[in-house]
Amino acid sequence: MENSYPSALLEDAVQAFAKLPGIGKKTALRLVLHLLRQDSAQVEELGSSLIRLKKEIKYCECCHNISDTGRCQICSDPRRDQETVCVVENIKEVMAVEGTRQYNGLYHVLGGLISPMEGVGPSDLEIDSLVKRVAEGGIKEVILALAATSEGDATSFYIFRRLSAYPVRISVIARGIAVGDELEYADEVTLGRSIMNRTPFQS
Amino acid sequence: MENSYPSALLEDAVQAFAKLPGIGKKTALRLVLHLLRQDSAQVEELGSSLIRLKKEIKYCECCHNISDTGRCQICSDPRRDQETVCVVENIKEVMAVEGTRQYNGLYHVLGGLISPMEGVGPSDLEIDSLVKRVAEGGIKEVILALAATSEGDATSFYIFRRLSAYPVRISVIARGIAVGDELEYADEVTLGRSIMNRTPFQS
Repeated sequence: MENSYPSALLEDAVQAFAKLPGIGKKTALRLVLHLLRQDSAQVEELGSSLIRLKKEIKYCECCHNISDTGRCQICSDPRRDQETVCVVENIKEVMAVEGTRQYNGLYHVLGGLISPMEGVGPSDLEIDSLVKRVAEGGIKEVILALAATSEGDATSFYIFRRLSAYPVRISVIARGIAVGDELEYADEVTLGRSIMNRTPFQS
Repeated sequence: MENSYPSALLEDAVQAFAKLPGIGKKTALRLVLHLLRQDSAQVEELGSSLIRLKKEIKYCECCHNISDTGRCQICSDPRRDQETVCVVENIKEVMAVEGTRQYNGLYHVLGGLISPMEGVGPSDLEIDSLVKRVAEGGIKEVILALAATSEGDATSFYIFRRLSAYPVRISVIARGIAVGDELEYADEVTLGRSIMNRTPFQS
């Protein structure tokens, strides 16, 4: 297939699409041919929204979430609990927690997890700014809502150590059997944790 | 997840991506967040290549393949056999046939298949222009390389009828067991066709 693109314009667009994660040459070609069949407005919209996004996007100066303004909607909402901060890896996790409608505090977006394998150290993440937020006072609880992986656990532990000097409650989201899961298919560590962290039965 | 995008710019980009076939909201968000982590040049490249593609792309005036010029590379290549025309549904099939390196003639891209279910009739496709090409003379063989579906067969039959008035050989690509396939898993129609259309054994 390599040299058989009938058009350099087509090839450029396919190559650009194929750089996206999970999109190969064939899918890229399918997407580009689909766009060619759409009207110009839709294609223009996709193209220009990407360019604008990259040029104009801001990060909240407080929680480092993606934002259109200097301070994000969540941080500037006076109805939210200003004393609780939920620490998450990325904006996807902010959206996931917001989706539950179970949380009314603020966030702190690290921008990744500590991963020596990928060369990501604490200084590459927004950890100093979290410590600064806590040091300034006013925060009573920090909830660590990171992935249940070795990177997530290492990051949680590092943050826990950095914050232990401050009078703040540090909690971790519960690990356990997912709602809807069968016990027999759960791994031993998760099942063990779910027994250790059992909660009073509520009917 | 609906109303929890922290940024209108982000939401615009996600929505534009999610309009593409096979890309849902979650994948769109993943792609957009990936692009945000890339440097501006790559994002600009994707955005502007799409806008340019849609604005500047041309279709070959002869075979209706996608082209950067009025006449495509294939049609304007003097080394190609000008007497044979392979009729295909779309540019993807041109690229597939080119990929085999087994064909050295020209193409004719219909732009779709006759499909009463989807409201596509012969006049929506480049069939008149094919008849005109044949009527002008110089073409000795038309190879119908359309999908082995009812739409493909209907389109082949329609073209066959339209061209039967002209002194041109009309052939259809072979249907049969795919190379590498087991006989026991082939459907009966394909297996039947492969027996009917058997070819002399070549060692």
